[in-house]
Amino acid sequence: MQRLYTLAAAAVAAVWLSAPAPAAAYDQLVEKQVFEMDSFTTQNGATIAPVRVGWEAYGTLNEARDNAILITHFFSGTSHAAGKYADSDAAPGYWDSIIGPGKPLDTDRYYVIASDTLVNLNAHDPNVTTTGPATVNPATGKPWGMDFPVVTIRDFVEVQKALLDSLGITRLHAVMGASMGSLQAYEWAATYPDRVARLIPVIGSGEADAYLIGILNTWASPIRADGNWNDGAYYDGEPPTKGLAEALKLVTLQANHWEWADETFGRALAEEGRDPAADITAKYKIEAVLDQVAAARAAVADANHLLYLVRANQTFVTGGGPTLAEGLARIEAPTLIIHQPEDLVFFPEGVRKTAALIAADGTPVQIVELAGTRGHLDGVLTIAQAGDRIRAFLER
Amino acid sequence: MQRLYTLAAAAVAAVWLSAPAPAAAYDQLVEKQVFEMDSFTTQNGATIAPVRVGWEAYGTLNEARDNAILITHFFSGTSHAAGKYADSDAAPGYWDSIIGPGKPLDTDRYYVIASDTLVNLNAHDPNVTTTGPATVNPATGKPWGMDFPVVTIRDFVEVQKALLDSLGITRLHAVMGASMGSLQAYEWAATYPDRVARLIPVIGSGEADAYLIGILNTWASPIRADGNWNDGAYYDGEPPTKGLAEALKLVTLQANHWEWADETFGRALAEEGRDPAADITAKYKIEAVLDQVAAARAAVADANHLLYLVRANQTFVTGGGPTLAEGLARIEAPTLIIHQPEDLVFFPEGVRKTAALIAADGTPVQIVELAGTRGHLDGVLTIAQAGDRIRAFLER
Repeated sequence: MQRLYTLAAAAVAAVWLSAPAPAAAYDQLVEKQVFEMDSFTTQNGATIAPVRVGWEAYGTLNEARDNAILITHFFSGTSHAAGKYADSDAAPGYWDSIIGPGKPLDTDRYYVIASDTLVNLNAHDPNVTTTGPATVNPATGKPWGMDFPVVTIRDFVEVQKALLDSLGITRLHAVMGASMGSLQAYEWAATYPDRVARLIPVIGSGEADAYLIGILNTWASPIRADGNWNDGAYYDGEPPTKGLAEALKLVTLQANHWEWADETFGRALAEEGRDPAADITAKYKIEAVLDQVAAARAAVADANHLLYLVRANQTFVTGGGPTLAEGLARIEAPTLIIHQPEDLVFFPEGVRKTAALIAADGTPVQIVELAGTRGHLDGVLTIAQAGDRIRAFLER
Repeated sequence: MQRLYTLAAAAVAAVWLSAPAPAAAYDQLVEKQVFEMDSFTTQNGATIAPVRVGWEAYGTLNEARDNAILITHFFSGTSHAAGKYADSDAAPGYWDSIIGPGKPLDTDRYYVIASDTLVNLNAHDPNVTTTGPATVNPATGKPWGMDFPVVTIRDFVEVQKALLDSLGITRLHAVMGASMGSLQAYEWAATYPDRVARLIPVIGSGEADAYLIGILNTWASPIRADGNWNDGAYYDGEPPTKGLAEALKLVTLQANHWEWADETFGRALAEEGRDPAADITAKYKIEAVLDQVAAARAAVADANHLLYLVRANQTFVTGGGPTLAEGLARIEAPTLIIHQPEDLVFFPEGVRKTAALIAADGTPVQIVELAGTRGHLDGVLTIAQAGDRIRAFLER
């Protein structure tokens, strides 16, 4: 059943996330692995024991262990950045268009590695391993629920660092991530300047500003409104599936753009003959598709994990701040910022301000503007248009 | 108790909607009146009996009855466009800065009239009279609930036309409205070109595009997720107050803009000493204020009315279309379109397209761009900056 849900989710996601098919997908099957720490102490001093996160890699780590590129994932994403787990998979990982042999993140040269974050949204996806509120706490024998400590982007980075340490990787050729992944990338470069040779933040700014704090709050609105949420204590009963699906609808729509919605759906009805102007239960096509996508995503997600992800993003200021300028000044790595000027999650002004603050002390910063009709999502779906710039930046 | 809620709502709204204080408020106390139709037939052929809506007016109708300006209200608004009901009111009507003696909508010259729409959101505000799902249907002795027929922007217009007919007003000097009010204004001008001498749509386009259809759907997400909503049948039990408040938070935030959020709240905490990075129940200041505003608004609103308003807006194409171009071609009145280029509800491209389609057959169209940090809300809060343009347009 779980597997069926996952396939359905992947199929629907494949339609929704209708990126052009890559010329050649990463050509080896990907194996999911699990990294475990007996105990992890958060930046706030809380203990999580154990911590387990999934990870995967493409390419080969060289003898010097200096050819690794870390990919950090977005809010609703996982470590599945490229390739397929099985030939029958509906779609490869989300950045397959730029990761693989001969591609910009050339797996003949680089060892590309990605891990699931703490409190990963897709807690019930069999290909995801994460630790969060839905995880059984061995100390109590029950899911953590809202007793799980608040975790931050910095905590995500610390778990990744422990994973890399376990592989003997002490310096990254580059760190690259989209959206929430860009926050992790900024944090890596500011916190461990000696360990990051190149920084590629995609569709993201150096902090969560007030509006984003508010937007993130509203992504969780339908979950809080769902009585089954029960202040997070639902693991013994009915989970807030309705609220979770409505929340994922909000996330899906905000990451998109009116231009694409207009050209894809227009004002088409979900069912001919059922006119929304005549029947309050009828729908427009975009509503029906959003419902489908959201239901498929909700089937493998956990509502409390979404709330903890919201919080992790809200707390973010690069390098812990205290001001954005101070945090970003700690970044020494040459930086390639990729964004979409029509992004409705991370507005272009915030991205440009971030670029200016990194460059203020002489750190080299380049900016690539993506074109497209998808807004924020162009950073995931049409990233290949920046392929030559990424390739050149990685070779310098 | 109801009165207390209303005062609280007005006070919080006054803080949130922090427009500059007008130089001189409309100087007479406003009296709310009620217009009643024994029976109203919707465009879809459904019967609502009776229909009652509130209305108010500023200035004096002249002998020729040709000096009337109709103001049509926005999604969460009411007919209270100017003045105060009592000297003790916390704030005057929303466009008081441009309506009054000597102001652009000069009440020494014009008779400015506004009415509550059908399915008005604020069904429990004692100053609002509306007919919708929360209204008792005399035929059953119970609230209509989801048996209330779908109503459209055109239906709103038809009720307004009946009100104007009852006052002997057969031709409007102008029709002007913001956001959902602009949709009503477009509809008036396209459906009754002989009755509209001037058209002033503010922060709105000629149709709901796919993205707006989706956004409107998500405004209702928290209501659908709230078990108390019970598919709309809650009038005998607990209403979905939590879902309604979360929905109004979404509406409030989307009508605003990151620039204002950033300069007003930044990353301030709701309570010093309760750090959101350490406590999952702690909040940032913008979250706490959004919660306050939303709770105050929810106290006088009805959840089903919000769903019906969502639908009325989703169905909108000027003049019933069938294409936007055909609908807008029916507009003959000289048009002054006022919008804000950073609007996150009605994007500027849609407004410009609307202007071009109206102008395509030679109808004169002027565009005024508002400046400001409030996005969509600048059309309500800082409309006075367009005062001279509005005054001149009304005098031509």
